[in-house]
Amino acid sequence: MIDKLVEKIKKTHAPIVVGLDPMMAYVPRHIKEKAFQEQGETLEGAAEAIWQFNKGIIDHVCDLIPAVKPQIAMYEQFGIPGLMAFKKTIDYCHEKDLVVIGDVKRGDIGSTSAAYAAGHIGAVEVGGKTYRPFDEDFITVNPYLGTDGIQPFVDVCKKEGKGLFILVKTSNPSSGEFQDRLIDGRPLYEHVGEKVAAWGADCMGASYSAIGAVVGATYPEMGKALRKVMPKSFILVPGYGAQGGKGADLVHFFHEDGLGAIVNSSRGIIAAYKQESYASFGEEHFGEAARAAVEAMREDIEGALQAAK
Amino acid sequence: MIDKLVEKIKKTHAPIVVGLDPMMAYVPRHIKEKAFQEQGETLEGAAEAIWQFNKGIIDHVCDLIPAVKPQIAMYEQFGIPGLMAFKKTIDYCHEKDLVVIGDVKRGDIGSTSAAYAAGHIGAVEVGGKTYRPFDEDFITVNPYLGTDGIQPFVDVCKKEGKGLFILVKTSNPSSGEFQDRLIDGRPLYEHVGEKVAAWGADCMGASYSAIGAVVGATYPEMGKALRKVMPKSFILVPGYGAQGGKGADLVHFFHEDGLGAIVNSSRGIIAAYKQESYASFGEEHFGEAARAAVEAMREDIEGALQAAK
Repeated sequence: MIDKLVEKIKKTHAPIVVGLDPMMAYVPRHIKEKAFQEQGETLEGAAEAIWQFNKGIIDHVCDLIPAVKPQIAMYEQFGIPGLMAFKKTIDYCHEKDLVVIGDVKRGDIGSTSAAYAAGHIGAVEVGGKTYRPFDEDFITVNPYLGTDGIQPFVDVCKKEGKGLFILVKTSNPSSGEFQDRLIDGRPLYEHVGEKVAAWGADCMGASYSAIGAVVGATYPEMGKALRKVMPKSFILVPGYGAQGGKGADLVHFFHEDGLGAIVNSSRGIIAAYKQESYASFGEEHFGEAARAAVEAMREDIEGALQAAK
Repeated sequence: MIDKLVEKIKKTHAPIVVGLDPMMAYVPRHIKEKAFQEQGETLEGAAEAIWQFNKGIIDHVCDLIPAVKPQIAMYEQFGIPGLMAFKKTIDYCHEKDLVVIGDVKRGDIGSTSAAYAAGHIGAVEVGGKTYRPFDEDFITVNPYLGTDGIQPFVDVCKKEGKGLFILVKTSNPSSGEFQDRLIDGRPLYEHVGEKVAAWGADCMGASYSAIGAVVGATYPEMGKALRKVMPKSFILVPGYGAQGGKGADLVHFFHEDGLGAIVNSSRGIIAAYKQESYASFGEEHFGEAARAAVEAMREDIEGALQAAK
C-alpha cells in the first residue's frame, strides 16, 4: 500500500491528503436541509448530511489527489449512524481508487491493539467466514504504550499489505508538553521517531517502509530533525492551512527528490467555500471551491519544493 | 459520577470493575451456535454472540460490583454490528444501575477530542435536537497530545457530571519504553500523573476528582509513588489476574481508608469457566463461574487491604 501511495503521489504531483473531517458547521445548508427532511433531525439525518457532503467533496477532488484521511471522531460523535457514514465514505473512496488513511489514533495493550488492527486494516473470523469490517489502507496509531502495543498493528500491516502512521510529534499547541521533554538530552519525539524507524525496518516497500509517522506542519524544525531520524518512514503532515502551517514550512519534511511526505489539509479544503478567497463559488458549489483549494495547495507545495532545490 | 462510583464501591465492598472484553474465544459454544443459527456466520452473528455472552455475565454479577468496563476494541473489530452490541451493552448496564467505564483510549488535537467527548460522554446537536450517542459514564483517554487534547474531555465531564481515567502507567510489558524514561530525574509517568492531578483540580466530587488515572497492577511500586503524586485522583487499575497482578500488589494503589482505586479484571472473570478452579461450573454456567470469580477477587482484595492496615 505504501508503494501505491508513492506511485499515486508521483502521478498526481500532489503530496496531498484531503482530511474528510465533516464537522456539521462545514456542511452547506442545502445538504443539511435535504438530509433532515428525509431522515429528520436525528443521528441518521446527521450521518446522511455528512455522507452527502463527503460525496460532493470526493467527486470534485478525486482525480487530483492520491489519498483521503477521514477523521473517525467526526463520525463517531454521531454514534452508530455516524460510523455507518464513515464506512460508506471509505468504500466510496476505494471505488474512486483513493488511498484511505483512517485517522483513528488507536493504541492499547497487545491483545486489544490486535482487535483494533483486525477491525480497521485486517480481517476478523466469524465461524468459518472472514470479514474486513472497516478496511482502511492505513491508520494512525498512538505510541504511548510502547512496542507491544504497536506490534500487532505492524504484524497485520505485513500480512495484509497495509500501513500505519504513528504519532511522533503532533501539530497541536500543547504537543510539546510531553513530546518535547528531554530524555538523555534528546526530546521524547526523537526517541519515538527512532522506534518508528525500528518498527518499520522489516516492512519495506520499494523505497519507503509501510510504517510511517505523523509530524505536524506547525513544527518545521522538528520535521527536519525527524526526517533524518526516520529516513525510510513516510511522514504524514497535519496542521497545514487552518492550523497555521505554510508551504515553505513543509520542505524539510520531504527528501530532496520531493518524496517522503504527504501533507494533510481538512478544513482548508472541505470548507474552502467559507473562506474569502473562494466565497465567489457560493455554498452550493462547495465541491468546486474544494477543487480550487486543492489546486492552490498543490501549487503552494510544488512551489516551495522547487524553491528549496 | 465519581461520587456515585465511590458510593457504590462502599456499598458493595468491592473496588472491582468487570472488564467486558468479549473475545470470541471466551464465548461458550452454545451461545455462538445459537447466534450463528439465527444470524449466520456474519458480523451480526458475532455481535449477537458477544451481546448474549455479556448479558449472561452482567445478570450474574451486577449486584456484586459497582462498575463494568467494556473495551470498545473487542466490539469495534466486528464493525458496525459490533459497535451496536457495545451500545446495547452500555444501555443494559445502565438499566442495572452499573457505572459504565468505556475503555476507548481516545485522544487527539482539541477539536477532534471535543468530538470524541461529545459522542462518548456528552451530547451532539442535530438541528434543534440533542442526542447522547454512546453515553458512557467514564471513558479512558490517552495523554500523549498534552493539555489541549485533554481539556475538551475535562470540559464535557464538568458540564455533564461524567469522568475520565487518563493513561499514566499502563499494565503492559513494554509500557516502560517511553513511560519510564527519566525527564528532569523523574519518569515520564510521574510528569503525566502531575498533569492528571492538575487537570482534575477543578472537577472535585465529595472526596475525589472526576478526572482519574490508569495505573497498571503489574507495577505496584510505581502505583505507590503515583498514589502520592495524585492524591485526589481515583486510580483505575488494570492488569489484575490474567496479566499477573495479585491482591497484595494492589494495596499501594489505595488510600488507608481502602478507597481511591478500582481494580479491573476481564478475562479472569468473564472467562472464569475456562480456568481449572471454576471448571466444575461447566461452559453452560459461565455466568455462575464469573460470579464465583468476582467473589474470590473481592476476598483477595479485601484480605490484602485488611492485612495492610
